[in-house]
Amino acid sequence: MARIVMKFGGTSMAGTERIRRVAQIVRKQAAGGNEVAVVVSAMAGETDRLVNFAREAHALYDPAEYDVVVASGEQVTSGLLALTLQSLGQKARSWLGWQLPVRTIEAHAKARVDAIDSEALLASMADGTIAVIPGFQGLSADGRITTMGRGGSDTSAVAVAAAVKADRCDIYTDVDGVYTTDPRIVAKARKLKAVTYEEMLELASVGAKVLQTRSVSLAMKEGVRIQVLSSFVDDDATPADDLPGTLIVSEEEMERMVEEGKMERKLVTGIAHDKNEAKIILTRVPDKPGAVAEIFSPLAEASINVDMIIQNVGRDKGETDVTFTIPQADLARAQALLEDKREAIGYNRIITDSHVAKISVVGVGMKSHAGVASDMFRALAERGINIQAITTSEIKVSVMIDEDETELAVRVLHTAYGLDAEDAA
Amino acid sequence: MARIVMKFGGTSMAGTERIRRVAQIVRKQAAGGNEVAVVVSAMAGETDRLVNFAREAHALYDPAEYDVVVASGEQVTSGLLALTLQSLGQKARSWLGWQLPVRTIEAHAKARVDAIDSEALLASMADGTIAVIPGFQGLSADGRITTMGRGGSDTSAVAVAAAVKADRCDIYTDVDGVYTTDPRIVAKARKLKAVTYEEMLELASVGAKVLQTRSVSLAMKEGVRIQVLSSFVDDDATPADDLPGTLIVSEEEMERMVEEGKMERKLVTGIAHDKNEAKIILTRVPDKPGAVAEIFSPLAEASINVDMIIQNVGRDKGETDVTFTIPQADLARAQALLEDKREAIGYNRIITDSHVAKISVVGVGMKSHAGVASDMFRALAERGINIQAITTSEIKVSVMIDEDETELAVRVLHTAYGLDAEDAA
Repeated sequence: MARIVMKFGGTSMAGTERIRRVAQIVRKQAAGGNEVAVVVSAMAGETDRLVNFAREAHALYDPAEYDVVVASGEQVTSGLLALTLQSLGQKARSWLGWQLPVRTIEAHAKARVDAIDSEALLASMADGTIAVIPGFQGLSADGRITTMGRGGSDTSAVAVAAAVKADRCDIYTDVDGVYTTDPRIVAKARKLKAVTYEEMLELASVGAKVLQTRSVSLAMKEGVRIQVLSSFVDDDATPADDLPGTLIVSEEEMERMVEEGKMERKLVTGIAHDKNEAKIILTRVPDKPGAVAEIFSPLAEASINVDMIIQNVGRDKGETDVTFTIPQADLARAQALLEDKREAIGYNRIITDSHVAKISVVGVGMKSHAGVASDMFRALAERGINIQAITTSEIKVSVMIDEDETELAVRVLHTAYGLDAEDAA
Repeated sequence: MARIVMKFGGTSMAGTERIRRVAQIVRKQAAGGNEVAVVVSAMAGETDRLVNFAREAHALYDPAEYDVVVASGEQVTSGLLALTLQSLGQKARSWLGWQLPVRTIEAHAKARVDAIDSEALLASMADGTIAVIPGFQGLSADGRITTMGRGGSDTSAVAVAAAVKADRCDIYTDVDGVYTTDPRIVAKARKLKAVTYEEMLELASVGAKVLQTRSVSLAMKEGVRIQVLSSFVDDDATPADDLPGTLIVSEEEMERMVEEGKMERKLVTGIAHDKNEAKIILTRVPDKPGAVAEIFSPLAEASINVDMIIQNVGRDKGETDVTFTIPQADLARAQALLEDKREAIGYNRIITDSHVAKISVVGVGMKSHAGVASDMFRALAERGINIQAITTSEIKVSVMIDEDETELAVRVLHTAYGLDAEDAA
């Protein structure tokens, strides 16, 4: 017997027909002798509908009341899934965020889970009753409904899995796992059997939008094993005890899987790309102590994340060009801030470019192997792709290139690191 | 300063535009220096949508999960009205059923209010914050969401008014008050300035569907003054301190209003009609002790309300025909029950007729004046309308007639009792 938390997104919950399909998948897990809790999103489109209502009511809305409105979508689907499970002869009941409760901290509309009281939940699950829990919602310290921001249901599921010490948290999405790269770009992309939390975080943060980043961080902190899999696979083809998706696990478990021959050892796990960055160049910044702080402090205060930074040597002595990247969505705000600070910083010109892309190679194997970065630069150079900036972490090398060369760069690197499907073991 | 509870139904809450209109009406009451709580229904159509979802999920639904699903409609509108009031610069917050809490007893999906904790609510209202409360929903003793059955929001409003000792409970509907009779039948119907609880109960129970019957009973028990008025009147034409609707009050207050010249003394207050009754005749029932009990006990056990009962003398000695009326919706069920009991009862034939209508004249003035019933019979006889059955209470006389004569009977009686508009003082 295992204890499993399952999570279904809005597409899987869109209407009573699809909820019936979800109920059958859930029931199969329970029929296999497992204790099961299910975390659900609102029906696809419903949260948007509710958010629009709130905005129409008050453009600068009170997030406490906004939460009252938008949390209702998950309340509906949790009640409906409990009813549908019952209609299949399966004991089930809903547990709303305020009922467990899912205690949250920090602001309304972007609350974070602090603790989940699991005693009543565990007793009910041990009794063979499937627990259905609305994702995205919780309870504040002063007894009001909170929500966790868009995509918060993944985090809810991981938090529930941690609270009940689940053997696994199965997250059902509209993709059937995590791939070596975007299959829409590279037809030879392969589904990964497993990735580590760190790899998943790097892949997610650079554009592989399978899971909400915060849910992966929480899983890493709490040691929750996640499986990403599709809710649209053929039901009969998937035995309840199979693991058809991608496991997201600790580095230790990954190492064990490699030693047991379940996974091939690879230097690079995946290639990610992100077209949502923008580049800013400030020319002729005085090359003196404190100049860089003058640039980046106001951006930090405005919560604008700076990613890559390069200092070029300027044309004149005592001056330098500073290049850096930020999210494209923050470009106008950053530009306005920097223009306000022109005199304090002392730069000459501000040049912006949103026609850039970031390409990253990610792999926990890099920790113990050098040469990944130089392989990357050589592969790109051979195809004439110019690198505008570079940044690295322990398990990632990222470069900024012209946006038009994104697809070419991803394909070249996918092949260069031996990730193409015919290379698979 | 007064303390006022206002209630708005689903038509008034249907969409953010209409909610803005409601917010303006509410704000005007608050601007007049009053403490205000507002009870809201779900958007028109929303509860039906949710009920259908629940039925699709599970035809024989678990009422506890049904309540989780359908209570969400009022949660949304309460958050939206709070947001809209805030957008007008008015302090407001929502209080969900489980937050106050509105403690309920008895079954899910048809819960009844037991008690409302009003301390936090009163403190918030005294601080100038308008309280927005979803109608229809409460909390069971075991901490789950309950709902009160369709139309339960009126009862919620009266229960809140009782809990906060409100000076008045204003119920906004799509009609602008209680009329002497159905204005669609009698063009000369007049809006009443006031009716007593007892009169309203009789008018409601025979078909004047302005308020949920249970809300009037509760108001009578708790001494809550209700005002029925329209949310669609011209805003500017209605000063906040005017009472443009119909007051529903105790007999004592009504007597005071008459003495102060605010109301005219009338024998009959209104004429109601109800086409939803059906007649059953059992022929040749043995005229012996216990025979009637054999008929009516099984109906009572099946919660079928019998209204009028007549025993005709049968053709043979020792036998009698028994005629009675029940709600049309229960006719098939009642017929099946009685056919099962044919031998025990010993009747000859069962004859049913759903082509009947009940016409009632209602007025608290009847308590002290005889002759109302005979005036009624004479007026109907003069127009050739045949009376099939009669029932009376202290403040009501009802007759059963052929359904085709409903409109004629109502018009004749409206004129006979001097209720036509040109007779108004």
